[in-house]
Amino acid sequence: MRWPNGFIAVDWGTTNRRAYRLDPAGACTAEFEDGQGVLSVEPGRFPDAVAEIRRRLGDLPLLLAGMVGSNRGWVEARYVPCPAGLDDLATNLVWPGEREAIVPGVSFVGDGRADVMRGEEVQLLGAAAAGRVPADALVCHPGTHNKWVVVEDRRIASFRTVMTGELFNLLRKHSILSDLLQGNAEPGDAFAAGARHGLDQDDLTSDLFAVRARVLLGTARREDAASYASGLLIGSDVRIGLGGKAPGTTFVMGRPDLARLYAAAIREAGGDAIELDGEQSFLSGIQAIATRI
Amino acid sequence: MRWPNGFIAVDWGTTNRRAYRLDPAGACTAEFEDGQGVLSVEPGRFPDAVAEIRRRLGDLPLLLAGMVGSNRGWVEARYVPCPAGLDDLATNLVWPGEREAIVPGVSFVGDGRADVMRGEEVQLLGAAAAGRVPADALVCHPGTHNKWVVVEDRRIASFRTVMTGELFNLLRKHSILSDLLQGNAEPGDAFAAGARHGLDQDDLTSDLFAVRARVLLGTARREDAASYASGLLIGSDVRIGLGGKAPGTTFVMGRPDLARLYAAAIREAGGDAIELDGEQSFLSGIQAIATRI
Repeated sequence: MRWPNGFIAVDWGTTNRRAYRLDPAGACTAEFEDGQGVLSVEPGRFPDAVAEIRRRLGDLPLLLAGMVGSNRGWVEARYVPCPAGLDDLATNLVWPGEREAIVPGVSFVGDGRADVMRGEEVQLLGAAAAGRVPADALVCHPGTHNKWVVVEDRRIASFRTVMTGELFNLLRKHSILSDLLQGNAEPGDAFAAGARHGLDQDDLTSDLFAVRARVLLGTARREDAASYASGLLIGSDVRIGLGGKAPGTTFVMGRPDLARLYAAAIREAGGDAIELDGEQSFLSGIQAIATRI
Repeated sequence: MRWPNGFIAVDWGTTNRRAYRLDPAGACTAEFEDGQGVLSVEPGRFPDAVAEIRRRLGDLPLLLAGMVGSNRGWVEARYVPCPAGLDDLATNLVWPGEREAIVPGVSFVGDGRADVMRGEEVQLLGAAAAGRVPADALVCHPGTHNKWVVVEDRRIASFRTVMTGELFNLLRKHSILSDLLQGNAEPGDAFAAGARHGLDQDDLTSDLFAVRARVLLGTARREDAASYASGLLIGSDVRIGLGGKAPGTTFVMGRPDLARLYAAAIREAGGDAIELDGEQSFLSGIQAIATRI
């Protein structure tokens, strides 16, 4: 590794950033999280935002991942095409300065589809490098834009994004369903019924409206609406992600509350789901990239 | 008819209202449209809003349809269950005063589904009464919430709502696709490609994200994004509406720009589409209800 004194790893997303100081052995010795996501940094002010990270964690080299490498970030780091492993990410780092590197995103074009990810790749490949997922695995990474990722030989072979999280948030904040969706989605009976419908039927844009109709007509309980609608969207997502194949084991990595819901829907589909911690996998992945610099 | 001097018909929706003065023969002799939808009227102020209509169109009885009969309107007019014809609507009018009547909405519970409509029923049954659609017909009524309506013997036998219009607006206003969807959706090649995908595939929540990925990766043109996404949503809507049956003739009634897009997607599915004017059908329907009072 080119950085004998360790470095600072930053997972820099659209609305948040998480920074970790890693010692030469890869142990995290300090960290912080704040709301200074990419969208809150004015164009041209990234050097200041980076200087602030160093003031808080020390004057060390920085390895940055996430939307900081998008066209709205500091410097654009172009997508690396699938199949993409840690070597490919390390080879295609973009260097805004001598002591700052940005990890590229990953793209997939094939099967008549096109897709992109930026940020998840470090976690995914970190989990594979650390042995938390096997060398060949199906990984589901819930978030604003859920990713279904086929890992082959510890590389990202292909993936597919489903915008479930964003749609649920749009419906909750701005739609005719808004007042019905204010409750928390919980993996109980109502969630399972929604997931079952989403897994079996392909009428999502119709059954979403029915969430309201059923409450108006008294055939469903108002307090079940958020869990049912969440189940419906996630069930539909799992149907797309499994792609008609017999469900085996899926590794679910992401925010624990979301991972729990996705795991419940995967089990409803007859598959096995293993929930994983995303933060540890990010640290494994970013460390593995740093050792390749 | 109880109203020998004619009456005022009002199509009073969530954000707009349209009022028509109809003479005893049913001819429209004056009309206006404004933005005083139900949501702009404060609770308790509907008598004032009604008085204003009379100041503009004359001191006549009023027959009101639409969201004015919802729980956010003047007085709630409960849903009439399917099958519902003009007689059923007329029998279940709700009378806030001696000279004001509100048309009820229609509900459907069956096939494991539940659904509601409020406002469209007058247009639909008006079209059937006036012979613009046959006594047995499939009618598609695009809008914020598109309705697929099975008309049997001039009554609404069943229907299904698809919230396509609202979803497209949410995506255009608030989502990660927002900047890509500002253009107008037009029924050309990009719309047809989207419609084809929506008709054939059931991965809507994934292919919506791909709209952005394809532009980022250069495999689709930015200026086609709005038409493609509109085609994708409407194609998926038509797939749900046709319900796997061989497509025959669908009557499409609603805003002309939307009707044109739905007609294009229905033709893409191999069906025939006949576009109808909604306003004339509303007047036929409301007149037919008035004669039953």
